[in-house]
Amino acid sequence: LAGFSQEAGLPAELPTTPDLKGHEISFVFNTLFFLLSGFVALLMVVGFTMLEAGAVKQEHLGAVLLKNLGGFAACSIVFYLFGYHMLYSGTEGGWHGSFKMWQPEAASTITPENFPNLFASGSDWFFQMVLASLPALIVSGILAVRIKPLAYLTFSVLLAGLIYPTAASWLWGGGWLSTTGFSDFAGATLIHSLAGWCALSATILLGARKGRFEAMKKVRPHRNIGYIAFGTLLIWIGWLGYSGGSLLAMDSAADAADVSNIIVNTHLAACGGLVTAYLIHLLVYRKHYHTAVVLSGAIGGLVSISAEPLLPSPSMALLIGSIGGVVVIMLSELLRTLKIDDVTGGIPAHLGCGIWGTLAVPLSNGDAKLIDQVIGMMSVAGYAISISLVLWLIIGFSLGLRIKNEHELIFYS
Amino acid sequence: LAGFSQEAGLPAELPTTPDLKGHEISFVFNTLFFLLSGFVALLMVVGFTMLEAGAVKQEHLGAVLLKNLGGFAACSIVFYLFGYHMLYSGTEGGWHGSFKMWQPEAASTITPENFPNLFASGSDWFFQMVLASLPALIVSGILAVRIKPLAYLTFSVLLAGLIYPTAASWLWGGGWLSTTGFSDFAGATLIHSLAGWCALSATILLGARKGRFEAMKKVRPHRNIGYIAFGTLLIWIGWLGYSGGSLLAMDSAADAADVSNIIVNTHLAACGGLVTAYLIHLLVYRKHYHTAVVLSGAIGGLVSISAEPLLPSPSMALLIGSIGGVVVIMLSELLRTLKIDDVTGGIPAHLGCGIWGTLAVPLSNGDAKLIDQVIGMMSVAGYAISISLVLWLIIGFSLGLRIKNEHELIFYS
Amino acid sequence: LAGFSQEAGLPAELPTTPDLKGHEISFVFNTLFFLLSGFVALLMVVGFTMLEAGAVKQEHLGAVLLKNLGGFAACSIVFYLFGYHMLYSGTEGGWHGSFKMWQPEAASTITPENFPNLFASGSDWFFQMVLASLPALIVSGILAVRIKPLAYLTFSVLLAGLIYPTAASWLWGGGWLSTTGFSDFAGATLIHSLAGWCALSATILLGARKGRFEAMKKVRPHRNIGYIAFGTLLIWIGWLGYSGGSLLAMDSAADAADVSNIIVNTHLAACGGLVTAYLIHLLVYRKHYHTAVVLSGAIGGLVSISAEPLLPSPSMALLIGSIGGVVVIMLSELLRTLKIDDVTGGIPAHLGCGIWGTLAVPLSNGDAKLIDQVIGMMSVAGYAISISLVLWLIIGFSLGLRIKNEHELIFYS
Repeated sequence: LAGFSQEAGLPAELPTTPDLKGHEISFVFNTLFFLLSGFVALLMVVGFTMLEAGAVKQEHLGAVLLKNLGGFAACSIVFYLFGYHMLYSGTEGGWHGSFKMWQPEAASTITPENFPNLFASGSDWFFQMVLASLPALIVSGILAVRIKPLAYLTFSVLLAGLIYPTAASWLWGGGWLSTTGFSDFAGATLIHSLAGWCALSATILLGARKGRFEAMKKVRPHRNIGYIAFGTLLIWIGWLGYSGGSLLAMDSAADAADVSNIIVNTHLAACGGLVTAYLIHLLVYRKHYHTAVVLSGAIGGLVSISAEPLLPSPSMALLIGSIGGVVVIMLSELLRTLKIDDVTGGIPAHLGCGIWGTLAVPLSNGDAKLIDQVIGMMSVAGYAISISLVLWLIIGFSLGLRIKNEHELIFYS
Repeated sequence: LAGFSQEAGLPAELPTTPDLKGHEISFVFNTLFFLLSGFVALLMVVGFTMLEAGAVKQEHLGAVLLKNLGGFAACSIVFYLFGYHMLYSGTEGGWHGSFKMWQPEAASTITPENFPNLFASGSDWFFQMVLASLPALIVSGILAVRIKPLAYLTFSVLLAGLIYPTAASWLWGGGWLSTTGFSDFAGATLIHSLAGWCALSATILLGARKGRFEAMKKVRPHRNIGYIAFGTLLIWIGWLGYSGGSLLAMDSAADAADVSNIIVNTHLAACGGLVTAYLIHLLVYRKHYHTAVVLSGAIGGLVSISAEPLLPSPSMALLIGSIGGVVVIMLSELLRTLKIDDVTGGIPAHLGCGIWGTLAVPLSNGDAKLIDQVIGMMSVAGYAISISLVLWLIIGFSLGLRIKNEHELIFYS
Repeated sequence: LAGFSQEAGLPAELPTTPDLKGHEISFVFNTLFFLLSGFVALLMVVGFTMLEAGAVKQEHLGAVLLKNLGGFAACSIVFYLFGYHMLYSGTEGGWHGSFKMWQPEAASTITPENFPNLFASGSDWFFQMVLASLPALIVSGILAVRIKPLAYLTFSVLLAGLIYPTAASWLWGGGWLSTTGFSDFAGATLIHSLAGWCALSATILLGARKGRFEAMKKVRPHRNIGYIAFGTLLIWIGWLGYSGGSLLAMDSAADAADVSNIIVNTHLAACGGLVTAYLIHLLVYRKHYHTAVVLSGAIGGLVSISAEPLLPSPSMALLIGSIGGVVVIMLSELLRTLKIDDVTGGIPAHLGCGIWGTLAVPLSNGDAKLIDQVIGMMSVAGYAISISLVLWLIIGFSLGLRIKNEHELIFYS
């Protein structure tokens, strides 16, 4: 346990510590990198919670926040109980991982001659847990206010424990998608469009919030645009840890350079998405700003680069993110026309830009083929829509999907 | 001073840099780890401030925030002037450290052959400073609104400079408690229950806020549940840095695995505490939610695991945290029955779960005995209650403890 | 791309990874340090945005936040397109860098025998990009509400791409100031007073917000003191990453000790600034607090230490920061007397303390001379005032500087 520092005692003990050698240095570097990436990525959890809190009426805030934080905790628990191994310990070329509990290695089993991996398994679980909580947070925002908290909690647990890990195991766990040429570095398809499809099927079952589309003629004031902006910034910063960390190694100069380039590309894609959305509003909509839509241009840029943040040049990353900003604006208009109620704008940013980013991989990755990207994207779409529809319907018939009256929620706070 | 980077000049200089060897690599790893842990743990300062800001009326906010940030700054200063050495440079088996100013080593005294420690002393001070500021922030939230800012500031300075370092020196500074079998890895007793006892003695002297217990029949709306939820999340994330960092070393693969397992256990304990508190409310209280109480289940889980975050299996950590969630709910009810006014719910979470976590150590640590844990916990309780009562009474007779009228505070903002 | 972790496959591959050696270890340490510093420093972007959001009327929030986040994104883009090389690739002893696009090195060009630098160039760009975005954020807060968003955006792009990099190239890029004895470690002059001068020239052209100085007899309630306090804390934490990171190396024990001492000094200077400002208010102004002014004492302390955060003893850092707190209070009074409208208090904190901190360098750095500090400070002042006046006037005549009516802004949100 090393004890706490005591100035007097230490120098005498120093010579007994053996010098670190190659593999152990790699182990510490990688572990430190996983932990740093996980800490930074956790800011996304705060950010998504703020984004949703900013988009709902203040009297619904208590219920909304309880659902979000409770869902985050529940997702972590199921990801520990079975989600992690549903993602990783599958058979080669298979369709799902195995159903067993995750276990860390004991530190005592690690000796300078014997490493189970070149990183502490706890640090890997920690980082993967943050990623596994993202789909539920994205779904949460899109369905905010009208979904029953218990229905959401049930679905979110299934999402983090089964739906997401199964899809992710197809590629990242060595499953069937990894035997095709499909490429999705940090989850534009496996995390973001997956979450978007799950939420889209629910929005159609749920319908819109009361009065949502009657009031559209006059500009609807945002509930708390401060929360939305701070949340966007925290998601943005957190994303840099999430996409950088997705390289899953930082024990060589080449890895360190790759991680740095990923972070630069991810940041520039966000900048491109936001500036493009802002410019469109300045030029096209002029005074009739939809601040939250413009801000979600940044999220759109981040999603767009997530399928391939490493190989593009910074200019290409900027371009990919900028087109993401256009996708966000266009799909936001389309949803409004179709009267699909998406409270936080998650469908344009995560689903729309998840598709765009996945299809854009061949622009910078010479080994990726458009047809493989389409196959991967469509497979996940088909899987996510069908399984989520079935589950939402089961939940709907057993627990009920939609709160009867929005005033119900007020009593929660 | 190394200068700023210039692309042209560097390559030529590279060969002159000597290769890093064993001890120096350890030094850099440990220092980087202390700094990372300290940065992450600082989010707890933001979190506790948000938690308190969310629990008070908005017109009191200016005075409350000024007191919190000013207190944080003042605590850091006294921890520099004498607190650090009150904690660490004591005599073996003694009762307190020594009264002297902290000094960093000069970088020039460090050579590849000569290290005073295996970490930069400044990075250790930085991390310890964050921990030393926690008790005052916990006390602040519990006593919010009715305590005179100047009385709080005076007490907080004594807490960070003398009360906490003295108790901590008993165990972490090599004092008398370290010669017993008492075990408290990250301060469930030495930080959290200590702060709880100090605040409890003050609540009894202060009494409740005006009208606090008259209005209890109808559900009292939270002042700003958004701040409470965001604050809880930031405390949670920060805690992972604080408990991981408490291993105080990351210069070997075994340390890296230990740190990772601590972070996983700490996270799962928080999840357990929150989910349990949420389930109790869903099943027992049904619609009559007390959102802030449920959210403080997460804090309860975090405190519960702080006495021993390393040795439990993840399942055991989840269980220990879950029981922490039950402790929070039960003690919140008890305080209400006893009409003890605890603005942020700090007494159930920090005092109640601090005791629970300390007593739970033998569940996973075979070397710890329940009787030793009881002795340690009771000693700190007796010490904290008696010294804080004396100090609060002295402060009360000299400066006054309670503001005359809550409206006083409004003029501050 | 290393692929994602698979428990089964890894151990077999371990022996093929070569042990890390000297220069590669330095490369990873420095890159990890740049990335950590950049992540932490990004909290300043959130902090400055919160600070400004807290100081304006809530109905202006949408427009203000859009301008801030959009400006941050635009600044990053121009810093990529030409700002970075305007800063660094200048001629020796010259007046500006060169106008070309930044390019990261490809990871494939890095071999254990061949390093272009001892850090990934992407990680350096990432850290420098955060610094380059600070002047615009400081200017934004000072001019909030009355500046036209498009005018601000135009100026901010010129500031991050040309004005700041040119001034910084004089010292950090090896330009003419670096041949004098001028010393400015982390930008008290090159970032903070530069931004202050640019904003001061605009405040004079813009005039005050409507009704700003009529209403001064009664205490003006802060718009959202919560945002201001949380923002101040995030700026504070972020600053520790920014000033520590400014050493630009952490690949030796001496560097690690230096970085730690910088962080300790920076933190204590903030504490000194805040406590001093608080004490002045307690003793002089008594009940008539200006909470935001007291809180900006912390920012003042942080700016004051930024010219030389490494060499002072912690006590000296505390003193330098404390005098910064006095400077903030006095200049806030002066601005009020002169009816200069500074919405977030940026001129006292960044300009006033930037000058004070620059002049204070000789107190701890025996090699620095007061006359050199004055020359450097005056040169940047003359440059910043003249170029910003010219640019603001050009922008004013083409786009217009001031919004016609504050109600205009409401339609943006």
